[in-house]
Amino acid sequence: MNNFRYHAYTDIRFGKGQVNCLPELVAPHGKKVLMVYGGGSIRKNGLYDKVKELLADFEVFELGGVEPNPKITSVREGAAICKKEKIDVVLAVGGGSTIDAAKVMAAAAYYEGEPWDLVVDSSKIGKVLPIVTILTLAATGSEMNKNAVISNMETNEKLGTSSHYFKPQASICDPEYLYSLPAMQTAAGTADIMSHIFEQYFQKDSGAFISDRFAESLLQACIKYCPIALKEPDNYEARANLMWASTQALNSLISCGKGGAWTCHPIEHELSAYYDITHGVGLAIVTPRWMRYILKDETVEKFAEYGRNVWSITEEDAYKCANMAIDATEQFFKDCGIPMTLREIGIDESKIDIMAEDTIKYNAMDKAYVALDKEDVANILRACL
Amino acid sequence: MNNFRYHAYTDIRFGKGQVNCLPELVAPHGKKVLMVYGGGSIRKNGLYDKVKELLADFEVFELGGVEPNPKITSVREGAAICKKEKIDVVLAVGGGSTIDAAKVMAAAAYYEGEPWDLVVDSSKIGKVLPIVTILTLAATGSEMNKNAVISNMETNEKLGTSSHYFKPQASICDPEYLYSLPAMQTAAGTADIMSHIFEQYFQKDSGAFISDRFAESLLQACIKYCPIALKEPDNYEARANLMWASTQALNSLISCGKGGAWTCHPIEHELSAYYDITHGVGLAIVTPRWMRYILKDETVEKFAEYGRNVWSITEEDAYKCANMAIDATEQFFKDCGIPMTLREIGIDESKIDIMAEDTIKYNAMDKAYVALDKEDVANILRACL
Repeated sequence: MNNFRYHAYTDIRFGKGQVNCLPELVAPHGKKVLMVYGGGSIRKNGLYDKVKELLADFEVFELGGVEPNPKITSVREGAAICKKEKIDVVLAVGGGSTIDAAKVMAAAAYYEGEPWDLVVDSSKIGKVLPIVTILTLAATGSEMNKNAVISNMETNEKLGTSSHYFKPQASICDPEYLYSLPAMQTAAGTADIMSHIFEQYFQKDSGAFISDRFAESLLQACIKYCPIALKEPDNYEARANLMWASTQALNSLISCGKGGAWTCHPIEHELSAYYDITHGVGLAIVTPRWMRYILKDETVEKFAEYGRNVWSITEEDAYKCANMAIDATEQFFKDCGIPMTLREIGIDESKIDIMAEDTIKYNAMDKAYVALDKEDVANILRACL
Repeated sequence: MNNFRYHAYTDIRFGKGQVNCLPELVAPHGKKVLMVYGGGSIRKNGLYDKVKELLADFEVFELGGVEPNPKITSVREGAAICKKEKIDVVLAVGGGSTIDAAKVMAAAAYYEGEPWDLVVDSSKIGKVLPIVTILTLAATGSEMNKNAVISNMETNEKLGTSSHYFKPQASICDPEYLYSLPAMQTAAGTADIMSHIFEQYFQKDSGAFISDRFAESLLQACIKYCPIALKEPDNYEARANLMWASTQALNSLISCGKGGAWTCHPIEHELSAYYDITHGVGLAIVTPRWMRYILKDETVEKFAEYGRNVWSITEEDAYKCANMAIDATEQFFKDCGIPMTLREIGIDESKIDIMAEDTIKYNAMDKAYVALDKEDVANILRACL
């Protein structure tokens, strides 16, 4: 087992009605709150009004309209408000896009230069305003982790950045907020969760038995509960398990003792950077093709283990078991209603080479589970067409 | 899934050589350190000298000799030093006993009355000095949780107390410190870890799927790695997984969304209170008898699930599967070298009734997975003879 640090200090308040803890969670950080949110969904479901009511004794500034694949333009706006109004605490109400944007705003509040610098070079992130979140989507795990992903559409860049201080001080996770999600967001969110798990699970064996079993537990939860949530959007148990899976999948718990760089996320980030597609859909399309591409003698036992422990496949031949597991993964995404080819979402082969080049340029693909070069990435993307 | 709060904020530094982080972890809290430890083992393995060397720039006071089943007398001593020397931070170097004693010292430092009050009534715990730990035993999970168990041999009481502020600020977990443990401590520590998991796992179903799968993952780790650690005391992978299992088994992770009071720990606490036996040994003896005692139509499916998911038992009949799982549990403890009857550890039936009475008196046994009264507890204890 590799050495590791585990310090997931976010104070999680999980369950029905936990939004009522909001004043208690915000108060230690100050009175001036920047409330960051996305589109109109929190106005429709009453959450916007509830937050304003609960924060009646605070001075609340607002930045709405943060978009999916959040843009650096939104970050700049938020940072300007933080500086001008001397904000004490940033409250993100939304999914991963809103939370990620809020994180970089909170860092940019203390940064004199251009906020995009903090995305390109995380070493420039210093002090960060305290962050509190109210989660409305089960997907990115941003509610309990140090990551943020920001897009710059002028330069076709979608890059991840991170800081220990990006971890929210507190997050309110009420599964009931997921009831009104469009089916595609439930499905794509689940694909995102599963991809986070795959990225950490499929790595060279380091004897981190517990992390691997935890990873399989979370995958089983996704596979069990996503179809239920799609059929019965207000099934509390399904929504609760998906929401908790999203948090646990990417708060560093299942990478404890493990190592290695990611693969599908870097590739998908290029798809989003060039085509602004839904992140989870891109991941679902890339994942099974990547799995098939890297299946070989060095990886087959791990894929067979995945098949046995997650999909309860009893086939003893390792290659057969591995292939059945990969097929099951692809079929699962398809059954959840996710378009499973790039052409279905309007992407052709014209930019494959430049996307492959950028994937290699911005990421340590040589440190991935199976090292990939530009040609490999292009081959995987072609298999996705 | 029940509502829950999850806030396990301890900064864990896990792995070989992590003790070198000690100055960095202690420094934010001040210069005056009370170093608390147990018997001579940390002098033998060089850890004592290493800590003193690393803390050369700090003012270090010492309290050694904290005993297994730590006594209130030790807590009083430590609290007196904290007050007299105006200690800034308590450093516990040892296993659960040392850490638990350190926690109550850290609270008693701010308490004007008799420290035992804080054990009997946790609501009297107010401010607590920051706590840092260096863990040398995989068992109690005290390195990342809010619990402390203290014994008062004058009154034959062994009671648990807890506070959110008992959670250590940081814990150094180096599996290599476990290499020199006597075999019985490895085995008894594993029985303690497994009992923590059972107490949380065997509860009424609340749809907390992830917590149950995580619990099974940790049980599998114990079952896989304890025999390896007993055969090869310096097998790093085995020690590392056992150490991480101990931390994750009782930092509230696997009780997220679940509820209900504990059973075997309350019963064992009476055995230790009257006979000062090794906690994990008492738990190993009680556990399978408790499982058999409560096996009935309302619980059989859960025990069968345990058999299938933890022991890979394929028997379809639920009662048969459940009984095979319980037998496997008992056999496992036996194979680890733990004496599996009370008589073997010098306990006869003379105090069974008073121990049963005290179990009921001090614990909410009516809120356990299966509610037990005094007669039930006495029956379970008699089955252990």
